Amino acid sequence: MSKNSIKVFAPATVSNVGPGYDILGFALQTPGDEVILKLTNSKGIKINKITGVKKKLPFNIYKNTATVALASLMNKYEIKEGIEVTINKKIGVGSGLGSSAASSVASVYALNHLLNLKLKKKQLLLHALVGEKISSGSMHADNVAPSLFGGFILIRSYNPIDIIKIKYPNNLYCTIIYPQIEIKTSYARKILPKKVELSKVIQQTGNLAGLIYGLSSSNYNIISRSLTDVLIEPIRSKLIKGFQEIKKSSISAGALGCSISGSGPSIFALSNSLSMAINIKNAAKLVTDNLKLNTIFYISKINKRGPKILD
Amino acid sequence: MSKNSIKVFAPATVSNVGPGYDILGFALQTPGDEVILKLTNSKGIKINKITGVKKKLPFNIYKNTATVALASLMNKYEIKEGIEVTINKKIGVGSGLGSSAASSVASVYALNHLLNLKLKKKQLLLHALVGEKISSGSMHADNVAPSLFGGFILIRSYNPIDIIKIKYPNNLYCTIIYPQIEIKTSYARKILPKKVELSKVIQQTGNLAGLIYGLSSSNYNIISRSLTDVLIEPIRSKLIKGFQEIKKSSISAGALGCSISGSGPSIFALSNSLSMAINIKNAAKLVTDNLKLNTIFYISKINKRGPKILD
Repeated sequence: MSKNSIKVFAPATVSNVGPGYDILGFALQTPGDEVILKLTNSKGIKINKITGVKKKLPFNIYKNTATVALASLMNKYEIKEGIEVTINKKIGVGSGLGSSAASSVASVYALNHLLNLKLKKKQLLLHALVGEKISSGSMHADNVAPSLFGGFILIRSYNPIDIIKIKYPNNLYCTIIYPQIEIKTSYARKILPKKVELSKVIQQTGNLAGLIYGLSSSNYNIISRSLTDVLIEPIRSKLIKGFQEIKKSSISAGALGCSISGSGPSIFALSNSLSMAINIKNAAKLVTDNLKLNTIFYISKINKRGPKILD
Repeated sequence: MSKNSIKVFAPATVSNVGPGYDILGFALQTPGDEVILKLTNSKGIKINKITGVKKKLPFNIYKNTATVALASLMNKYEIKEGIEVTINKKIGVGSGLGSSAASSVASVYALNHLLNLKLKKKQLLLHALVGEKISSGSMHADNVAPSLFGGFILIRSYNPIDIIKIKYPNNLYCTIIYPQIEIKTSYARKILPKKVELSKVIQQTGNLAGLIYGLSSSNYNIISRSLTDVLIEPIRSKLIKGFQEIKKSSISAGALGCSISGSGPSIFALSNSLSMAINIKNAAKLVTDNLKLNTIFYISKINKRGPKILD
């Protein structure tokens, strides 16, 4: 019994987690993008519909993250079927929540199941990365990998790619504060210095080691002490109106830590219970309301599994 | 029943472990310095004897690492007893194996037991650090802390000081290759750049996170993939004749990884069995013999406990 269409959800992700710039990311339960693939009689890939976006995303299949990923996968395995793609964007484009990575992941995951290719996630990874590269301009795995594998992911190395799933405490919650500000990833990269002070690197690495150890040993206290980014956050936070106040209010409300998700503008705060995650949201909302900052909030446990077949 | 003298061993340590520059160290079972403290009728601290060194170490109690540490401790707790100190140096001075840290740690640990002060190791730490600072010129905890606490130690933060004991696999062995070359710690610091490339920092942090995760989850494969230092080793290894050949031969002989201990000249290689540790020693010895490099070797399991009362 094979179906001729499939609908897949792939989760949003938080990358650049605290001191883990470019190497550490985790998956959320919500939001996530949905991709619907439908087998057609004509050859090749076609984008049928894109919903949920204000700004237009490309229908050109060589420019859209989802279809570039699909094309890469189909090319590799010499797949000739005709595929019609519908993308329901539920993650804000340019939100810092791995929107393009999620579409990319949903697409390759969907094709794998639709055609019963029996590929492992590891085999899908490269193609999702190729897709994501089209929109971000460079190959970064810290959104794609957690969206695909779920959980907390360390990109130990990019060349060769080495992905490690990190253990983390069961009751880890994330509050996302997404102010409706536009930040271009390319600009957020451009303002970073090429070189950084060694003394700051020592601070950053101390915190990173602490964070990894705290996560893997389920020690909330160590996680909290370590969730500090002295290299990137001080620079990029200037692009996010109200960042310092939001961070302060989140910590006061009990967050283990709070920093920028991806290259922003989204801000994430971790906590160890749902009620705490809600408290953080409420505290941050007071700040954003006060600043008249139109803001979207999400509350989510860490997503253990990655993509999900909806239909 | 109180004694009027005590003899304490404190272990040598490997600091700057791979990608953990200034933040990661571990203790060895051998070698280690011994300090003998003897209560006297006269007031104050006096150095009686220093054995085991070619170059003279200071007998001036304000300049010797062991007595500076003692004085700091005695001052803090208003201890007026007269103390006579004998130091048996068994760790090479300037070896990169935490020689001054070990003397410092042995001294405060000895005094704590001799006078039954019942201080915790945490309370001894600061005073050992003060002692070590006299010889190294700056406060670095990544030798003192592992010598005092044993095991694998993360210095998450220096200000405030935050020491975290990291879990590590049971069968972790270390081969030390100590070529008889003199490297001044202060010079080894001076040749490091003030700033480093962000792209290298990403590589370094990926490996550090991998190393911490590999250690804490007893995954030798991850430890091995992660035991790489792209920031410091390329610069400091130039001061160590034969470093690249020694490293290559160690890895070929089965080492999980191999890098500089402290600021050198000692080189450490980790492995997961005693026979492997011996193989590594033999392989490295071929190289150092070939280079006519007078070299001392140690083989040791990671030291779990730190200092030990001998007498």
